[in-house]
Amino acid sequence: MAVQFELTKEYVDQLHNYIENENEVAAFEMVKDLHPADIAEIYDELDVDEARFIHVMLDPEVAAEVLVELEEDDRERFLKVLPNEVIAQFIDKLDSDDAADVIGEFPEEKQEEVLSHIDDLEQAGDIVDLLNYDEHSAGGLMAKELITVNENWTIMTCLKEMRKQAEDVDEIYYVYVIDDNEILKGTLSLKKLLLNSSNKKISNIIDTDVISVKTDTTSEEVANIMDKYDLVALPVVDQLNRLVGRITIDDVVDVIREEAERDYQLVSGITQDVESSDSAWVLTRARIPWLFIGLFGGIIAALVMGVYEVDLGVNPKMAFFIPLIAAMGGNVGVQSSSIIVQALASNSMGFEGIGRKLLKELGVAAINGVILSTVIFAYNYFFTDSFELTITVSAALFSVIVFASMFGTFVPMALDKFKIDPALATGPFITTVNDIMGLFIYLMIGRSVFAFF
Amino acid sequence: MAVQFELTKEYVDQLHNYIENENEVAAFEMVKDLHPADIAEIYDELDVDEARFIHVMLDPEVAAEVLVELEEDDRERFLKVLPNEVIAQFIDKLDSDDAADVIGEFPEEKQEEVLSHIDDLEQAGDIVDLLNYDEHSAGGLMAKELITVNENWTIMTCLKEMRKQAEDVDEIYYVYVIDDNEILKGTLSLKKLLLNSSNKKISNIIDTDVISVKTDTTSEEVANIMDKYDLVALPVVDQLNRLVGRITIDDVVDVIREEAERDYQLVSGITQDVESSDSAWVLTRARIPWLFIGLFGGIIAALVMGVYEVDLGVNPKMAFFIPLIAAMGGNVGVQSSSIIVQALASNSMGFEGIGRKLLKELGVAAINGVILSTVIFAYNYFFTDSFELTITVSAALFSVIVFASMFGTFVPMALDKFKIDPALATGPFITTVNDIMGLFIYLMIGRSVFAFF
Repeated sequence: MAVQFELTKEYVDQLHNYIENENEVAAFEMVKDLHPADIAEIYDELDVDEARFIHVMLDPEVAAEVLVELEEDDRERFLKVLPNEVIAQFIDKLDSDDAADVIGEFPEEKQEEVLSHIDDLEQAGDIVDLLNYDEHSAGGLMAKELITVNENWTIMTCLKEMRKQAEDVDEIYYVYVIDDNEILKGTLSLKKLLLNSSNKKISNIIDTDVISVKTDTTSEEVANIMDKYDLVALPVVDQLNRLVGRITIDDVVDVIREEAERDYQLVSGITQDVESSDSAWVLTRARIPWLFIGLFGGIIAALVMGVYEVDLGVNPKMAFFIPLIAAMGGNVGVQSSSIIVQALASNSMGFEGIGRKLLKELGVAAINGVILSTVIFAYNYFFTDSFELTITVSAALFSVIVFASMFGTFVPMALDKFKIDPALATGPFITTVNDIMGLFIYLMIGRSVFAFF
Repeated sequence: MAVQFELTKEYVDQLHNYIENENEVAAFEMVKDLHPADIAEIYDELDVDEARFIHVMLDPEVAAEVLVELEEDDRERFLKVLPNEVIAQFIDKLDSDDAADVIGEFPEEKQEEVLSHIDDLEQAGDIVDLLNYDEHSAGGLMAKELITVNENWTIMTCLKEMRKQAEDVDEIYYVYVIDDNEILKGTLSLKKLLLNSSNKKISNIIDTDVISVKTDTTSEEVANIMDKYDLVALPVVDQLNRLVGRITIDDVVDVIREEAERDYQLVSGITQDVESSDSAWVLTRARIPWLFIGLFGGIIAALVMGVYEVDLGVNPKMAFFIPLIAAMGGNVGVQSSSIIVQALASNSMGFEGIGRKLLKELGVAAINGVILSTVIFAYNYFFTDSFELTITVSAALFSVIVFASMFGTFVPMALDKFKIDPALATGPFITTVNDIMGLFIYLMIGRSVFAFF
């Protein structure tokens, strides 16, 4: 039984060693039984020339799979050093969806070059077809390899045909049934194929309750459908309902992970897909854009305070509660936005329109606002000697909570209406706006309260 | 071909209407062809009695599946009104893993009650076995239903046995091969079963490169393994390597989604799994704990500023840059933590220890710090009349960025060392600490700079 591979520092050191001494036999021995995903992980620890030293020794099928498993930037670096003919040989060995993904990353000229070197014309044609679809659509996710049978066949004919087709397909999850016009009619489960006698007609055992998507369905929708209905494979049809491909769950797991990572990065203020193992320079580049927004917001905040300089001079203690007001505005805003963003992503907004959502959010904000303002009122009443300040802080806190809630709810819904990613609303931009507005509200209320009493 | 169901307000209103008028035929007509996942969504819009009105009319298999598809709190409310005998009938129809999940949510006494009413003793035994495992482990995720064949059989015997076993299993992805001691030896792909002649021995076509997990493997690890190796099903073995169950990808997709949602909620300061369609009260309860932390932090910040009241009185413009310093400390800290949290979650920390990570983070912080401090220095040099303040803001900004980076990197790694969820470090608690420390650093530097010049 295969033992699961674990990449250790000792392993990498040993491999470095063999490669340095050009000990091909020993180096190959270390990797030859590994899964392509493991070999891809090893490449991540090697430089390009070392990886190439290993790559040329691998079985071509495995070598091709390793390319698919590499991270996008590693793959780019690696493929840059290979001639187009060699790349074409690897591409030829891949499933059409993986092949299209790899080729899709090349500039157009290189795409044509590589495609012209692919021997299998059917594969080349499939790739060209797939490249036409948006990569975030069902067409961009699907593979062309699938097993189809005609509804008029018997199980026996069906099995014979499947044997022929199965050579091109890695895993069979479902057999798709089509009619003479290639229109998708249903699926045939392998279980039914096993459990029925061989002279039965397919149309008698077909499951017509098949869920399919069109080529232009978005990848988010594909993920939601496969998750909701617990599917491992999903057929894709064109506008005429002709079966054109299938999407497998492993690709959708990647979509789900990537989406979740993107949303997470947005809410934590990171602009690119980075890993903690990336270089300091890459990490800095991913982080500094949002910090600039924060810096800019800080300058605006300083300007706002400049307008109220006289008030702060008369009541210097007002400054004491600026961090509190700013922090609460930011926190409340992010909470509100992220609840909406999650609801939009998982398609669970319910039937409430923008108006109803805002109304409910107003309720939540009012409850939170009353509780928190009362607490800070009690604190200030006992520990602060200025009653004006006590009133100002509580009134401002309540107003800021309400404002930040409304703003945090409205912005992602509005972005979504205009087909812009609502997750952008959770980023530092909205937080910064909330900070500044909170500060402004606080200082304005302060001026009124102190003038009144 | 099945049209995908979309829940609309009109649909729900119509159904409400039929139920109110006790029109069973019309109500049943509306739901009878729907997928259990769709019916569960409909229940979400009905009250308990309305849902029960529908539920009793459903085919028992479908009714049982609907229960599995309900959200945990909806299921709890719904099952509360059903007698234990009826619940047992539904449980009996479910796969063992789903059955154990549903029963696992009951208090112990009710578990025993329901189990005692299950007619199928094998099913009851499987459920009891599964209940013993931690729900966040491979044992807790697996189902007992699987298709196993002996390595000594021929393909023909194998097909005959599979026909018998297949009745209990929803979907066949792999056939597992065991020896006489039930030790897992490998898998048999359905493709190979189709492509080989029926008198071949299993041991000749077995794939021994099977990846398996132990019952106590954590669900995060299970998810990482299935994602990495693109598996749709993963066999689970006990300490003696005997095959005891299998995990299917749909359960793992749920694990991945839940994990992502939890991390997302932590970083956005929400303490419970809430949806935008929940009531205002539920939403308030999920949000107020973190806001209290923010409030408490704000009070501490006010106290810190009280200590420096004299300095602020002499140089009131110092207050202007407090929002900037606080915001930047918070942003940088969250960025640092979330990169580490993502790396820990996806197992991509690489070989760098805590020391090396902190050193690299110091590099990132230094680059960011120098750039941002220089920009704000230039701004203040031209637009602020106090050179002391100009120096103070830049020096403090640099220090705060470095401190927040170090702190944000260290805390999640330390939490992880002590087996505490590192994602806690991304929450408002750390942000609040960063705010206060940032403020303190700023005021301290300010006092020194103004004293020196």
